Amino acid sequence: MSAEISHASERRMVVAGGRAHPDLATAVARDLEIELLPTTAYTFANGELYVRFGESVRGADAFVIQSHAAPINEAIMEQLIMVDALKRASAKQITVVIPCYGYARQDKKHKGREPISARLMADLFKTAGADRIMSIDLHTAQIQGFFDGPVDHLWAMPLLAQYVRTRVSPDNLTIVSPDAGRVRLADQWSDHLGAPLAIIHKRRDPSVPNQVKVHELVGQVKGRTCVLVDDMIDTGGTIVQAAEALFENGAKDVIVASTHGLLSGPAMERLRDSQISEVVVTDTLPISEEKQFDKLTVLSIAPLIARAVREVFDDGSVTSLFQGNV
Amino acid sequence: MSAEISHASERRMVVAGGRAHPDLATAVARDLEIELLPTTAYTFANGELYVRFGESVRGADAFVIQSHAAPINEAIMEQLIMVDALKRASAKQITVVIPCYGYARQDKKHKGREPISARLMADLFKTAGADRIMSIDLHTAQIQGFFDGPVDHLWAMPLLAQYVRTRVSPDNLTIVSPDAGRVRLADQWSDHLGAPLAIIHKRRDPSVPNQVKVHELVGQVKGRTCVLVDDMIDTGGTIVQAAEALFENGAKDVIVASTHGLLSGPAMERLRDSQISEVVVTDTLPISEEKQFDKLTVLSIAPLIARAVREVFDDGSVTSLFQGNV
Amino acid sequence: MSAEISHASERRMVVAGGRAHPDLATAVARDLEIELLPTTAYTFANGELYVRFGESVRGADAFVIQSHAAPINEAIMEQLIMVDALKRASAKQITVVIPCYGYARQDKKHKGREPISARLMADLFKTAGADRIMSIDLHTAQIQGFFDGPVDHLWAMPLLAQYVRTRVSPDNLTIVSPDAGRVRLADQWSDHLGAPLAIIHKRRDPSVPNQVKVHELVGQVKGRTCVLVDDMIDTGGTIVQAAEALFENGAKDVIVASTHGLLSGPAMERLRDSQISEVVVTDTLPISEEKQFDKLTVLSIAPLIARAVREVFDDGSVTSLFQGNV
Amino acid sequence: MSAEISHASERRMVVAGGRAHPDLATAVARDLEIELLPTTAYTFANGELYVRFGESVRGADAFVIQSHAAPINEAIMEQLIMVDALKRASAKQITVVIPCYGYARQDKKHKGREPISARLMADLFKTAGADRIMSIDLHTAQIQGFFDGPVDHLWAMPLLAQYVRTRVSPDNLTIVSPDAGRVRLADQWSDHLGAPLAIIHKRRDPSVPNQVKVHELVGQVKGRTCVLVDDMIDTGGTIVQAAEALFENGAKDVIVASTHGLLSGPAMERLRDSQISEVVVTDTLPISEEKQFDKLTVLSIAPLIARAVREVFDDGSVTSLFQGNV
Amino acid sequence: MSAEISHASERRMVVAGGRAHPDLATAVARDLEIELLPTTAYTFANGELYVRFGESVRGADAFVIQSHAAPINEAIMEQLIMVDALKRASAKQITVVIPCYGYARQDKKHKGREPISARLMADLFKTAGADRIMSIDLHTAQIQGFFDGPVDHLWAMPLLAQYVRTRVSPDNLTIVSPDAGRVRLADQWSDHLGAPLAIIHKRRDPSVPNQVKVHELVGQVKGRTCVLVDDMIDTGGTIVQAAEALFENGAKDVIVASTHGLLSGPAMERLRDSQISEVVVTDTLPISEEKQFDKLTVLSIAPLIARAVREVFDDGSVTSLFQGNV
Amino acid sequence: MSAEISHASERRMVVAGGRAHPDLATAVARDLEIELLPTTAYTFANGELYVRFGESVRGADAFVIQSHAAPINEAIMEQLIMVDALKRASAKQITVVIPCYGYARQDKKHKGREPISARLMADLFKTAGADRIMSIDLHTAQIQGFFDGPVDHLWAMPLLAQYVRTRVSPDNLTIVSPDAGRVRLADQWSDHLGAPLAIIHKRRDPSVPNQVKVHELVGQVKGRTCVLVDDMIDTGGTIVQAAEALFENGAKDVIVASTHGLLSGPAMERLRDSQISEVVVTDTLPISEEKQFDKLTVLSIAPLIARAVREVFDDGSVTSLFQGNV
Repeated sequence: MSAEISHASERRMVVAGGRAHPDLATAVARDLEIELLPTTAYTFANGELYVRFGESVRGADAFVIQSHAAPINEAIMEQLIMVDALKRASAKQITVVIPCYGYARQDKKHKGREPISARLMADLFKTAGADRIMSIDLHTAQIQGFFDGPVDHLWAMPLLAQYVRTRVSPDNLTIVSPDAGRVRLADQWSDHLGAPLAIIHKRRDPSVPNQVKVHELVGQVKGRTCVLVDDMIDTGGTIVQAAEALFENGAKDVIVASTHGLLSGPAMERLRDSQISEVVVTDTLPISEEKQFDKLTVLSIAPLIARAVREVFDDGSVTSLFQGNV
Repeated sequence: MSAEISHASERRMVVAGGRAHPDLATAVARDLEIELLPTTAYTFANGELYVRFGESVRGADAFVIQSHAAPINEAIMEQLIMVDALKRASAKQITVVIPCYGYARQDKKHKGREPISARLMADLFKTAGADRIMSIDLHTAQIQGFFDGPVDHLWAMPLLAQYVRTRVSPDNLTIVSPDAGRVRLADQWSDHLGAPLAIIHKRRDPSVPNQVKVHELVGQVKGRTCVLVDDMIDTGGTIVQAAEALFENGAKDVIVASTHGLLSGPAMERLRDSQISEVVVTDTLPISEEKQFDKLTVLSIAPLIARAVREVFDDGSVTSLFQGNV
Repeated sequence: MSAEISHASERRMVVAGGRAHPDLATAVARDLEIELLPTTAYTFANGELYVRFGESVRGADAFVIQSHAAPINEAIMEQLIMVDALKRASAKQITVVIPCYGYARQDKKHKGREPISARLMADLFKTAGADRIMSIDLHTAQIQGFFDGPVDHLWAMPLLAQYVRTRVSPDNLTIVSPDAGRVRLADQWSDHLGAPLAIIHKRRDPSVPNQVKVHELVGQVKGRTCVLVDDMIDTGGTIVQAAEALFENGAKDVIVASTHGLLSGPAMERLRDSQISEVVVTDTLPISEEKQFDKLTVLSIAPLIARAVREVFDDGSVTSLFQGNV
Repeated sequence: MSAEISHASERRMVVAGGRAHPDLATAVARDLEIELLPTTAYTFANGELYVRFGESVRGADAFVIQSHAAPINEAIMEQLIMVDALKRASAKQITVVIPCYGYARQDKKHKGREPISARLMADLFKTAGADRIMSIDLHTAQIQGFFDGPVDHLWAMPLLAQYVRTRVSPDNLTIVSPDAGRVRLADQWSDHLGAPLAIIHKRRDPSVPNQVKVHELVGQVKGRTCVLVDDMIDTGGTIVQAAEALFENGAKDVIVASTHGLLSGPAMERLRDSQISEVVVTDTLPISEEKQFDKLTVLSIAPLIARAVREVFDDGSVTSLFQGNV
Repeated sequence: MSAEISHASERRMVVAGGRAHPDLATAVARDLEIELLPTTAYTFANGELYVRFGESVRGADAFVIQSHAAPINEAIMEQLIMVDALKRASAKQITVVIPCYGYARQDKKHKGREPISARLMADLFKTAGADRIMSIDLHTAQIQGFFDGPVDHLWAMPLLAQYVRTRVSPDNLTIVSPDAGRVRLADQWSDHLGAPLAIIHKRRDPSVPNQVKVHELVGQVKGRTCVLVDDMIDTGGTIVQAAEALFENGAKDVIVASTHGLLSGPAMERLRDSQISEVVVTDTLPISEEKQFDKLTVLSIAPLIARAVREVFDDGSVTSLFQGNV
Repeated sequence: MSAEISHASERRMVVAGGRAHPDLATAVARDLEIELLPTTAYTFANGELYVRFGESVRGADAFVIQSHAAPINEAIMEQLIMVDALKRASAKQITVVIPCYGYARQDKKHKGREPISARLMADLFKTAGADRIMSIDLHTAQIQGFFDGPVDHLWAMPLLAQYVRTRVSPDNLTIVSPDAGRVRLADQWSDHLGAPLAIIHKRRDPSVPNQVKVHELVGQVKGRTCVLVDDMIDTGGTIVQAAEALFENGAKDVIVASTHGLLSGPAMERLRDSQISEVVVTDTLPISEEKQFDKLTVLSIAPLIARAVREVFDDGSVTSLFQGNV
């Protein structure tokens, strides 16, 4: 008899999915050739959420996939509660997989007495017990710095750009940023595809009193196919206005490419009824039937997530996922 | 000229209210003879919440009132975001006022791989920046220990009991706990009113195979007016079944007294259609018109909260609020 | 030569025992077929404690067993110091095994300006370096939520109930809670054994001035064998008074079953001299010779702890320990 | 005799300055009509820094001004050590004033296995004891979210723009961003002055193999006076190349306006020898004599800092500092 | 009605005392012309401690005085529990006053797998809620760095030295360190009194096999009055052996001066029966009647503590307490 | 398909080196038969540092070697940034290897309003992400307690003493402490080599007014070979003065032995031009050519570090490294 017991160590991976976008979690699991962790989840009559896992997670590397889709606060709270349950059940390491990170646009104080909700979310997940975050196309890359731990930041642009290439000849393309804040993303597309850049931004018109703001187009779009790029399409207002400005300035065609298809409120009607010829998004968020329309193309993001999860579990390099083929 | 500037120090109190139960926040402010902190709050199309305060809170003692009412995750998230905004705007001390604490019933693991969501909520508020919590009739008093800081725990029982006394002679009263978990509360009522106690609990019937559970009444209720007490009425199922068991055992009358009127789902119909003669609750939660019915009496909780807020601000003793007149 | 060295990972378990209840630690180790970690521990002349481990614990899963037995503050401090030594010696994971958790009854503020010592203890262990707590029959299950990490909460009731079954026919049994605060435990026994429930509680007698409190029996015990259940027997006062009330109400026999036998001060005399026919406890605490008496039966808790430690080390599910045979 | 002693509370402010930019700290103190806190600071032979304050800071609101100027790691470490000394000397609240925040450009991971040094700096100051950060024109506004506490973010643009207005008629102005990452700042200038926008960015030239990158001008500058805006001028390379591109595209004149004049390495020669007609910066960083040249205009930032410090101390609203006159 | 309520801020001080050394707490309070905070404290039959304060401490600057006297773990735990109660009762700032800091000698790892209990104590107090520590003559000054916050470190040497001066002419004095670890303290006495230094240390005797250790005197003591100085006298063994070595080397007289009189176990007999002519200590620890003997002089430390508490409360400079008259 | 994926776990070690002392990192790696982790590190024009690792460190046990050599704040900041990058790249465990710990002498407050920079450094590394510190001959052993985690404290004395033994016969040796603060180290040498001890310290000369301090030699050195021992040689002033005092008191020869050769400023000249016959140091710090001189002997510390790193990785006992051969 000795003072210790020892045996070879083994690593186990489990993947749990919240209720916000079950199709995506299922697709990721299928790509990983694994079943989702059996999970009981329901909502009490007063709106409180309940989660319980059906199998032991003790010592496991756990991945919790939840899209921050509407109703977004439910989705976030459910994921927080799942993390708490995993922590208390002795999971060894917990990776929060957030295909579309909620509150990402509230990443700074524009004015006094505002919250920085994107930082708050990172802290809430840390507090609940998250060791690592995995996400796709954060609204600003600085959000990586909001979390006190590793953030695996995936990049859907190659996927979107590859699709766009199949639809338009790069020769006649112009990449367009719909406002001043998205220029860096447009710049990356421009560099990736070797296409020129244009920008639409708003400013006060000095010739008109009362501070009316005007949309100004910077760059050349006449006769060109414009790819309007953005990380997300919410209500579609900015995008559709930008598209109109492009057509007014002589654009031949406008395609919209965006990672996250929120498509909130009037988005579907606006886009469907616009002159835009195609809208390309991924399925980081669920796109219900009512949100779909003819011009909408949805690319599957599950293979990218599955590959990243596998690399994290195998201690491989997630970096290669977005650097290799750029 | 010297190496310091000094002036007399002053204390300022501000009271902010979330959108979950505006009537209560307004009533508390009115009792304090103060206006609510001007606040801009709205919900984006994708469900994200936005809050901004309209006046400086720098150096202030801030109280943030939010009932965790349905949709409860919205309410909690909004309060977290308000706390974050106050912290980043240099409020000196932030007290989170939660008239009805959400997820209070998930205060322990009943089985493996469950969360302890009541503790998680305490940690989320701490992380967002809360210095202190004020709440009323926590589901279990141990929740005080979930928060790492002062918890001012108010007690609505004297208010409810005083009302009950005006309706029933104490001589013929029996206090009834609707299940084994609420006996301590019933015991306090019993002691407070000097009335005997009865309990309803469920257990396996050993005479029947297959583990059927039966409701068992422990104690004497024949010919007596029963006051069924609970901290909250959610869907009303337990309460109505308990009342039926009381009538089956010969109770003359049944009154229900409870601090928090969640009245979720079928609660209103169940209670209205039952033999219960009166249901007394406070307005820690908003009670919409559809939830109201003839037998329902709603007592105002605002004076109790206002008094406690005032004592906290004046460094008085909140303890006196529930000890003086018991 | 490459930029990394790698080899297969191995897990090692070590089990250390404090000086509060050496027999239990030894029994657990024996059940695990392991030797206790060689440990030097002594008390300096001024009462300061000293601990040093005799073998490397680097990278090990360490379990530190200490019963919080009298002198209880010595026991707690010794365990904290052991955890600190393990942390600084690079143990990989530290599980604090507390068969009987000290200060568990101070789990809430009953009045203002009291501590919540049960939460304080959880925080002290966290600060010292504990990753996980394992305990048996916490005074209230909410104490699980006091620790910021996994708590493996074992349950001695099946062990006690199995023994009781060997002594009394279940047909004539009534389960009795000695006060309003223990009803939930009695309810679990009642459900487990399919036996009816009774409660003893104190309240003001309204017919007598000056607020005299009386013991009131709720439920039927006439002619029945009563099993008085509690999580712990401290000075025995409550239990013996409850037993007397049962006999006064016609009970045929009274057996006491409790997980933790503190048996402080006059407990032994009180119980020995009472009409109670048998007192059953486990050895989560040491029971010195002076505390023993004829009617006392002590069941060994070591097999349950050993099984749980083994499952934690093997990443099995501790939950099964108390769910399987209920 | 009673159980407490009480007296009116008083607030004291002290302002300490590090050695990186003594002129600025002195100017701020002068504007506040206060003397700098007497401080002993020196560097040991091996490079270790030593700081000691000459007067009590117990209970004081302390402001520690340090520009993160070269040698920048010395400057940061000195400020951290000053904060530690204030914390241990019982200062009540510590505000770190960083006119130019070091490592601000390392605010995200561009590639795998990089640090996020801007977040690290925020955490280091928090750890040392900082309660609040005050800074001017952070490289990206998201850095506000890197600090877990209030950040008072001042804005030098109104100061710079007001000066530019005195030199050039707004009618013929174009605001130019020197790369895609600075467009948001240019957009603010454009809106503030009611002037059109242009952008210079780099991208692969698709017509040339081997991925050569070209500078592309987006927007109209022919015959116009261009104001090239950036938050900082480091080695001047980007700015001078941008200016050349503007002249090549027919710009009449180019003025450079930037908050932070790092003017590292070859910056002075490059700017002096360029066609740029004027370079306007503030003195958030010290500008040694060797860095000065005829075309350089340095505006004093001390009044803005002094006003903000005063408002923080008086619990006024720093927000008004940059919103009032925009 | 406005959005805030404000009034002048006031500071209140309360002083609470644990049960380890009530005379000292009372003496400090008397010097402060204040009554001790009314406190209920008792020990349960199983050794658990209970504390409750009898008056509101909301918003107060609280000082908690507890000597870490035997039984030392009781004393420490009681102080931790008092801090927890103050924190939860909304005390604004909590200063832990520890006249003699427990576990101070366990301030480093001498060998592997030891704790650093002095650091652990600092962390435990931080966790419980302490904002500041005040102590006297810490065993090593580095312990100041173990606490994450202000430490007010008082110095009893001037008090002791002043007394020694009244008994012996400084001309014939030699200051002696009883071992190699206390030389720095002896050096301070030597400098303070202008007297030469001698040291006693143990080492292997190379001339004798088997590594026997010998006491070696370094320095001249022949015909001189020696003052043996140490921070604490525990069992007195080292001190008495040192005194013997001094007499063997021709010392004329030996006086012992030490801040903390633990006087554990055989200390009283050893010192009384030695040739030492006088032992001078302060009353940082209680000295029971059995520990007293003719040659023992006990100086009162209460005035020093009272002055320091007052200066902390008044935001004065505690530093002056030990620098002014050295 | 099942709900988990599992595979055998493997441990990987990577060793990274900062730019402060590349020869040492390389030597350690060579002794470990590993290549240093490919690392890109450079300094921007404004002094900001940049680091990126060239290979994945995901899941690895990472060791980051950096001597805190001049420019010392650069060295510390670079190591902090390396730790941040490793943490964000998902290294599993990060050990900071600091052969010579910076700011070690600022380990306590000598006067009020000073920092405790040695504690600050420990906290900064913790914040950046360090799990463990490895260092050699910390200035005071208490610094181990400044870090909240394991500290592997290596000991160079056996290496130095073994070398000294090859040069001098132990019979005629005296170990000398150059001041009162280093006596404990001298005591360890004295015990290790079985040689007598002497001390040099400064004190006021009572016979001279105005508080002049004199160097006083305590102990016998006449005709003996003295080994002056210290943990570090900085400017050499204290050492050279001590050597002079020894020669004045009749010492035959003086050898200096010290772990850390800072050799700042005038150290080389002072030592070279002194009567000291040999100066022995290790290469915990780089010793540039200008710092070298004939009498200087530099022993390699790399084997000791390599052995300790290997033992940490293999979960062996580092304690044996300095206990085995004493």
